[in-house]
Formats: sequence, C-alpha cells, structure tokens
Amino acid sequence: MEFPFDDFTGRDWQTADDPGTVRFAMIGLGWWTRAQAIPAVEESSFGETTVVVSGSAEKARDATDLAASIEHAITYDEFHEGVAADAYDAVYICTPNGLHLPFVETAARLDKAVLCEKPMEATVERAREIVGFADDVAVMIAYRMQTEPTVRRAREVIDAGIIGEPVHVHASMSQPLLEVIPDPNQWRLDPELSGGATVMDIGLYPINTTRFLLDDDPVAVQAHSTYEHDAFADVADEHVSFTLVFADGVHAVCTASQNAARSSHLRVTGTEGEVVLDPVFFDREDRGFRLSVGDEQYTVAFEQVDQMTEEFDYFAHCLLTGTEPSPDAEHGFVDMLVMDAIYDAAAADDATPVPEP
Amino acid sequence: MEFPFDDFTGRDWQTADDPGTVRFAMIGLGWWTRAQAIPAVEESSFGETTVVVSGSAEKARDATDLAASIEHAITYDEFHEGVAADAYDAVYICTPNGLHLPFVETAARLDKAVLCEKPMEATVERAREIVGFADDVAVMIAYRMQTEPTVRRAREVIDAGIIGEPVHVHASMSQPLLEVIPDPNQWRLDPELSGGATVMDIGLYPINTTRFLLDDDPVAVQAHSTYEHDAFADVADEHVSFTLVFADGVHAVCTASQNAARSSHLRVTGTEGEVVLDPVFFDREDRGFRLSVGDEQYTVAFEQVDQMTEEFDYFAHCLLTGTEPSPDAEHGFVDMLVMDAIYDAAAADDATPVPEP
Repeated sequence: MEFPFDDFTGRDWQTADDPGTVRFAMIGLGWWTRAQAIPAVEESSFGETTVVVSGSAEKARDATDLAASIEHAITYDEFHEGVAADAYDAVYICTPNGLHLPFVETAARLDKAVLCEKPMEATVERAREIVGFADDVAVMIAYRMQTEPTVRRAREVIDAGIIGEPVHVHASMSQPLLEVIPDPNQWRLDPELSGGATVMDIGLYPINTTRFLLDDDPVAVQAHSTYEHDAFADVADEHVSFTLVFADGVHAVCTASQNAARSSHLRVTGTEGEVVLDPVFFDREDRGFRLSVGDEQYTVAFEQVDQMTEEFDYFAHCLLTGTEPSPDAEHGFVDMLVMDAIYDAAAADDATPVPEP
Repeated sequence: MEFPFDDFTGRDWQTADDPGTVRFAMIGLGWWTRAQAIPAVEESSFGETTVVVSGSAEKARDATDLAASIEHAITYDEFHEGVAADAYDAVYICTPNGLHLPFVETAARLDKAVLCEKPMEATVERAREIVGFADDVAVMIAYRMQTEPTVRRAREVIDAGIIGEPVHVHASMSQPLLEVIPDPNQWRLDPELSGGATVMDIGLYPINTTRFLLDDDPVAVQAHSTYEHDAFADVADEHVSFTLVFADGVHAVCTASQNAARSSHLRVTGTEGEVVLDPVFFDREDRGFRLSVGDEQYTVAFEQVDQMTEEFDYFAHCLLTGTEPSPDAEHGFVDMLVMDAIYDAAAADDATPVPEP
C-alpha cells in the first residue's frame, strides 16, 4: 500500500516564514513555567518572554534571569492593575487550575490574547466564564498534543480512512505524582485548586487526544475511581478508569493514575487497521507510531521536538497571521463537561456486581 | 536490576519426561478441530487422537484421514451410546458453545476426562451443570493462554512483584469475523448456540487472561456494546467495551470486536513498572513481552509454540501424573458469571450523558 503522507511536515500549520514576534507575559512561575515554558519560548521562532508574573515579587524578580528578553517582573496584583501592559501582546497562564479565570478576565480587559493551560479551570462554571471572555480575545487552551507532529500525523492517517472506520480506542496515562513532586500538600491534591487530582491533571490527555484524533466528542461516559493513599483522600481519584462513548458507536477505554509507574499509550483500532502510539503523552520520549493495515506494518518515526516550543510557535503564528488558534475555549470547555460527567459517574459507583459462584 | 527468571522453561508444569499417552476422542469436527486441534495432538508428546465424533457420519469418516492414530469415526448419537468408549481416555469438546453440556454429561457417565472449549456453555445455568459433573471427572476449560509460555512467564513476573502492585490493565481483541468465516448464518451469530457473538467468543480472552495474570477475579463490571451490521442483530454485541473492577482496586479496561481489524494487546501497569504483551491472543504471531521497571526496559522474546499442542500436552500430563488440571470448571464458571454481568450491564446502557455545551 502506498503511504500517502510523504510530504507531511511537522509544522503543517505554518504558512508564513517570518510573520514577526509575539511578546509573552508568563503568569504563574512554578516549575513548569520556569523549566519548560520560558526555555521553550526562548527556543521559539515567533515568541519571546518579556514579562514574568508571580504571586510573589521575589519569585518574579528571580525569574528575570531565565531569559535575556525579560523586561518586567510584576506581581499578580500589578498584572491586574495593567502594569507593563504595553510590554506584552499575549499571556500564558500556568497557575493552579482554579486560579485561571481572573487572569483570563484581566487579559480580556487589556485586550491580550490568552494561551491558558489545561484544564481551563477547576469547575465547569468557572470554565464557562472563560468561554465568555473568548468572545473578546483569542483564547487557546494549551493541549500540547494537538501541536505535536506525531499526533498530528496520526490524525491525518485516521482522517484519511487508512485504518477504515475507527471502532475502539485504548488510552492510558500514569505517573507517580508523589515522586515527581514529593509534597502531599501540593495544589493538585487540593480539590478547590485542582478540581481533582487524576482526571483533571492527566486523564484529560486520553480524553482530549482521542477527541482530536477522532475529530469527535463523546456523548456519554462510564467511570470508576479508587484511592488508597491518604494524600488522595480529598480528591478521591488516585486511580481512574473511564469509557468515552461517541455518537457513532466508537468506545474509548481509558485509564489514568497519579500513583503508578510513568507510562502512556494510545491505540486506535479500526475496521481495516490500527494506529498505535506507545509512548504518547509525556514529552522527551520516543516519538512515532505504528500503523497496521491488513498484514502490512509501518513504523512511522519522528524526531523529538520541544512540545512547548511547537505550541508557542503555533499560537504566535496564529496571532501574527490573523488565524483563529485551535483548540479554542469552546473546545476546552467540552473536556470540562466530559470530566465533570466522569466524576459524576465515578461517584455514582454503579458497576454491575458479579455474583459469587 | 537482576532479571530473576533466567531459568524459566516454557513447560514449567512438566515433572515427568515420559508419563505415557492419553487417547482423545475429538468431538465436533469444525475447522478448528480439523485444522488446529487434531494436528496439535499429532504433534504432542503425551496425546493421540483415536476417535473422531461428529453430528454427521460422513464428516466423521472424512476426518479419519487427519491422523494415522484415528481408529473410530462415530456420530454424536453413537458417542452418547458409549460406542468405542474403550478406545479413548479423554474427550476434547469443540462444538458450538450451547451444545457442550450433553457431551460433558456423557463423558462423566463414561468416566472420561474432559477438555472443554471455552466458553463452557452458552448460559450460566448450563455451565453450572458442567461444574456439577466436574465432581465426577477431571474437567479442564481450554483457555490456551494459560499454557502459553509467554503468558505464563509474564504472570511470574507480575506475581514476583517486579512491576510493584498492579494498578491498571488494558486488554483488547478484535477480528473481522465475517471475513474469517464469511457466513452470516454461522453459529457464533446465533444467540441460542453461542450465548453472544463477541463477549463470549473473544471478549473472554481479555477477561480470562487478566484473571490469570492477576490471580484474582473481578467483583463488578461496567460495559457498553453496539452493533451496526445486520448480521449482529440477534446477538447485539458486534463491538463491546467493558471494565473489570477487582476487589483490591485494580481496574481492567477491555475492548472486543468481531468486526474490526485483527489485533490484540494486553498491558498491566503497576506501581513500579509495566508488562506489555502486544500482540497477545492470536496464535501464530510474534511471542514475547516488554517489561519496563523504572527507566529500564527489557524485551522478553519467545519462540512461537503451537498453543494447542501445549494445551493438550499439559492436560494429558496432568491426567497421566494424577495432577488436577487448571483452569478447571469452577474457574471457567467465573468467566460465565462475569460475561453474564457484562451483558446485563451493556443492556442497562446506563452511561452518564455528557451535557451539550
């Protein structure tokens, strides 16, 4: 079989070679922003970090060393007052989930485009307010899988019907959260700030990437969650499994755990073949996928890219070329509804018992 | 990390070099018995086919060419009358699911050991009767994964705690049934004879192999099934997804389809690592598994074996050495209960809807 994507380029979205530069204010200076996002913008073609914003003036000041382009270090309060607003064109919001909303609101008032980390917020209600602000300014939700070349190419393969009609999806993501961040009081374990530990933080990778690959949204869910470790007592979702049911009959069965070995995979089985991405969701891992069609197997390998650089460049390129960035707030809001339904289904705990023999 | 299974042999169950020979009556002479089971016994060390049994005298006669050891070709009626009973020690039952029971009953009456194809029967009630007959004679259910060296070794790895505590399992099996057997009136699509098309025929591979690998049984299930193709109208389970919930909190998410590309995989993620068998359930495919522990990855490769030869030799070796064969009827009966719960859960169709945005 002829493999029809030989002319695929990693940046299939890029139309302009030199569209200019978007200046970013980076909001929330935790590990991810300092170690991943600011270096990624530094490496990017169309972005630069000019402002850093933190709850702590000292933390903001310390972050000015992270890139030569940084001109202003301001506090959250100063951001809301509009300090240094002329120095940036867009904001990147990477606070705890439940603190996103006020920054989106201020960015909209200041007419700044928004790249907001996923999930959009801690609750459906607050996420809905963000969707409202997206009428005024461009809001993109930072699903880095959607600008990952491997995932984009897998999507092309599926969309072109190479594996026939999709039938089933398996997707998983797990990590030992308390080894990655050894703090039982971290915000991800505080339901007010996170909205939930596992579905909200990593379960949304299987959800959103499946939606992206199938170009469809689930209409119903089944779910089951458990916890054993005390640190998860308030959020309850240490381990979770869920099934996404799509209108056309596709089922996606997914698992996520914040207390298991680091691992991820995604497998789409169709009527004619299969696409397997294993690993898929973590960055700095092997990139590629396996495509089976009938008895033929293809291994499609990709160079690793900095996923955050791809994401920032895509977002900046959109702003500079007047293109609507995607995934937008409405797209991210569907995940909020799906995750809310998953938490409801898990809480209902209505699995059918297997009788004793 | 030291890999602790260097002395693993494929036949870890074998204690006797030359225990003798078990003579088999092969009941039900469809494609599987003729092309797989009789040749497998021919290749085996401890078995031989001496009797073939069919609903049709002509079909039985035609099958005598399949092995030089075959002495008698008899009908189902003749079998029930005890014809040629001195010529065999054990029976292999490979009729449609819903016809197993009377052959087990007769075998028990004739004091013949039973290797009965999976699933045990078409309904829980009839399977329960088989469990009763297992008080009188040895009854093994033919789950060939349990004597597959790759799966046995993966089980050892899991049991030894190499991947820590199991957390999540993914397992899938799919095939294009109407291409494999191009007959819309085949017995697998007749609920009276099969008990269901997909859960009963291939869904039980994920179920039973997960039970075997975890050495545990599910206490509850969630399930969803759909069909589109007319041939599946009577059985309804063309595509099925289900979650097995274990008492210790492990969830296994599984899919099975009789109308998708041929594929299978099984993945056990634990607190410390992971075992991935991909492919796993079909015979004549690559054998082995991937073991990840922390940052270490091992690829454990096996030679292909004839899975049916392994199964027949294991069963015969048990009979010849006075060992209880496993999986027994009680073990197989648990699958019947699990599958019944899956059909109930799928029929209830109680997935939680995702609201419109």
